[in-house]
Amino acid sequence: MASSKSIKLKKGPELWEKAKKIIPGGSQLLSKRSEMFLPNQWPSYFTKAKGVEVWDLDGNKFIDMTIMGIGACMLGYADPDVNRAVARAVRDGSMCTLNSPEEVELGELLLKIHPWAKMVRYARTGGEAVTVAVRIARAASGRERVAFCGYHGWSDWYLAANLADEKNLDGHLLPGLDPLGVPRGLKGTALPFHYNHIEELEKLVKQYPDIGVIVIEPLRHQEPENNFLGEVRKIAAKIKAVLIFDETTIAWRMNTGGVHLLYKVIPDIAVFGKAISNGYPMAAIIGKGRVMQAAQKTFISSTYWTERIGFTAALATIKKMQACNVPAHLNKIGGMIGEGWKKLAEKHGLKIKVVGPNALVTFSFEYGKDNQALKTLFTQEMLKYGFLASGSVYVSYSHSPSDVAKYLQALDDVFGFMAKAISDRAVRRLLNGPIAHSDFKRLT
Amino acid sequence: MASSKSIKLKKGPELWEKAKKIIPGGSQLLSKRSEMFLPNQWPSYFTKAKGVEVWDLDGNKFIDMTIMGIGACMLGYADPDVNRAVARAVRDGSMCTLNSPEEVELGELLLKIHPWAKMVRYARTGGEAVTVAVRIARAASGRERVAFCGYHGWSDWYLAANLADEKNLDGHLLPGLDPLGVPRGLKGTALPFHYNHIEELEKLVKQYPDIGVIVIEPLRHQEPENNFLGEVRKIAAKIKAVLIFDETTIAWRMNTGGVHLLYKVIPDIAVFGKAISNGYPMAAIIGKGRVMQAAQKTFISSTYWTERIGFTAALATIKKMQACNVPAHLNKIGGMIGEGWKKLAEKHGLKIKVVGPNALVTFSFEYGKDNQALKTLFTQEMLKYGFLASGSVYVSYSHSPSDVAKYLQALDDVFGFMAKAISDRAVRRLLNGPIAHSDFKRLT
Repeated sequence: MASSKSIKLKKGPELWEKAKKIIPGGSQLLSKRSEMFLPNQWPSYFTKAKGVEVWDLDGNKFIDMTIMGIGACMLGYADPDVNRAVARAVRDGSMCTLNSPEEVELGELLLKIHPWAKMVRYARTGGEAVTVAVRIARAASGRERVAFCGYHGWSDWYLAANLADEKNLDGHLLPGLDPLGVPRGLKGTALPFHYNHIEELEKLVKQYPDIGVIVIEPLRHQEPENNFLGEVRKIAAKIKAVLIFDETTIAWRMNTGGVHLLYKVIPDIAVFGKAISNGYPMAAIIGKGRVMQAAQKTFISSTYWTERIGFTAALATIKKMQACNVPAHLNKIGGMIGEGWKKLAEKHGLKIKVVGPNALVTFSFEYGKDNQALKTLFTQEMLKYGFLASGSVYVSYSHSPSDVAKYLQALDDVFGFMAKAISDRAVRRLLNGPIAHSDFKRLT
Repeated sequence: MASSKSIKLKKGPELWEKAKKIIPGGSQLLSKRSEMFLPNQWPSYFTKAKGVEVWDLDGNKFIDMTIMGIGACMLGYADPDVNRAVARAVRDGSMCTLNSPEEVELGELLLKIHPWAKMVRYARTGGEAVTVAVRIARAASGRERVAFCGYHGWSDWYLAANLADEKNLDGHLLPGLDPLGVPRGLKGTALPFHYNHIEELEKLVKQYPDIGVIVIEPLRHQEPENNFLGEVRKIAAKIKAVLIFDETTIAWRMNTGGVHLLYKVIPDIAVFGKAISNGYPMAAIIGKGRVMQAAQKTFISSTYWTERIGFTAALATIKKMQACNVPAHLNKIGGMIGEGWKKLAEKHGLKIKVVGPNALVTFSFEYGKDNQALKTLFTQEMLKYGFLASGSVYVSYSHSPSDVAKYLQALDDVFGFMAKAISDRAVRRLLNGPIAHSDFKRLT
């Protein structure tokens, strides 16, 4: 039987309030804002993280059953094998006038896993890497108009979609994003279509015969239907557009490499980030030789792209993911979590919806306008049992069946508590703070 | 007396040839291409770097008297104090679902050093950080047209200058840069002017009353004349443009913090990178509260911007730079190098030009069309004496007077050799490989 603990939270929320005074938004990442989880009551900061355990500023220890560094730490926090390689790079020098041999070794490994690709470039963040990919693609096709679907970061090329019509990104991952500060001259250069709606891309291509680049996330929570990926590939080939698969979020979770290998649909460029280096800044852009060579006709250069830890961490991470068949573990554990949610929701008469893939298993409450309050209550109550929890679990190799069992024990209590709260119409009253934000909001 | 060594180079140049086959350009940074130093004969890769010493793949050991990780390693390679802090962050977890408390601590330190600034954001590369700054500035001023001077990276906002007229970046740091892949709709959004030519900025402002952002490097190799920085500041205030000082290259070298503190000219935003974290990917954007708050009205968010090592390394680096008065050391050592160049050039009758600041001391040969061949010969011959050498020295805290003495001993020989080569008209014949590239060239 799980037991609810008394969690003391003082230093964490206090530091978060201080942070918001000197950092616009408090964190560099929207998804790490405390308001996205539990306003005023979130531990907010960590002193130590190991495996799936997290220690906060107030000496509390939590099990992370949520975003695991927003998917960056797929092996678990402070993985011993990756850290051994990183420690060596730190000791022997992480930066030099000369280049890191690991840069070439990593390239060879990525190209071995993806034999269709012949060349590789690197960056340090996913957003930056997709922007490099788009520059290369535009240079290669000689055309600047981009059709896209999914989430691709903060860059001008992407937010430009909202210049045409503020609603254009609705239905994509971040509705209501304000493109303030993105030049108006980019209007019309980024055109969204919806995943699994090939007819939308067909319409765009008819309307804008000069589309030169197509960027999609090959998978997030929806499976491709009616050979969606293959059909996108066909259209790209037909109009001679460069096809970019942005695999920043999904790659390495379901198989070794990009999910395009799983679906046997080959893009012209694929982009990796996050999980590729288990928490050390790194991103890679791989592609066909003809396309990637266009990088030589434009200027793409940055000092810290040459730093050694990124290459070293990625090499150690990829080798471990291969050796341990990490995707199989994620699939199993994610499956257990998803089944647990369903079973316990049924037991307590809660209406929820579970979506996959298992490696990124996600549930939402199905109570219309009360969903966000329920999600907040869920996070609040799970925290008392020692779990960082929200609607998504970015499953890691460090999540064990026993972690899941403990989590489901707590969930049994919390779902029971929540079912009673719903029938008592007490959800809002039981919240000890404001409802969590569900998207981009200004923090003052 | 210095002695010329027999340097064996095999594995390094071989790996570089391999790299170019799978990485367009071979390296992620133009300045780290072997062709920029010594085509076919450059060690190219390091296994270990410590202080100012560098070990290559062939077991050679060199003293770095050139770009020191292109200015990123101002304390020297693998600095023990920075590495101690980094090792702790690696051990305790570099990434988590929660935030790093060091993120706030670093912000407080930066704002303490720059009391005019009230808020801070971070990125991981200099180019990315300036792009964040430009987005914030455009959002704050509500106007998108940028006037700029100096070098600011690979981003669309900057390369857009070359869309208007391929010669527009001429006279800036990278003439001939091709903006291929940068949308034509950005034409006219970035307008260059020259350092110390305030009349050019005045003209731009008259011609384009909607300039909303001014971006400059406050200093590189030229001192500001006629209160140039102050005059730029006045113009920005008059037209209500956001003034950004891109201090990525120069900050921390001449004083603690940005050089704007030295000249007592306060921008609205300042950008730091490179030296701020001594070789670990990190960049910071600081600014006035009103301006920085605009970051909250647009979307600027990236996972790896939240990674812990960057904050930790920057904290340790800045504290050490303060405690050891690193700028004073750089000034002294750079002065010794510059004086040594002048004295030995005079001794051997070589025509050279030395420019400052001492912390970034630089010389060039003054032989017109032969300059690049002479520079290549210089690098080739200095390598035989165990020095990585080119026209610039990014002086570090690890460069000792005894390193300089050994370097100047070798220089005496090499300048003597070169003077004879010039008088024998034998410079090109003495080169064992092609002449180094002087700017952006496609590598095939």
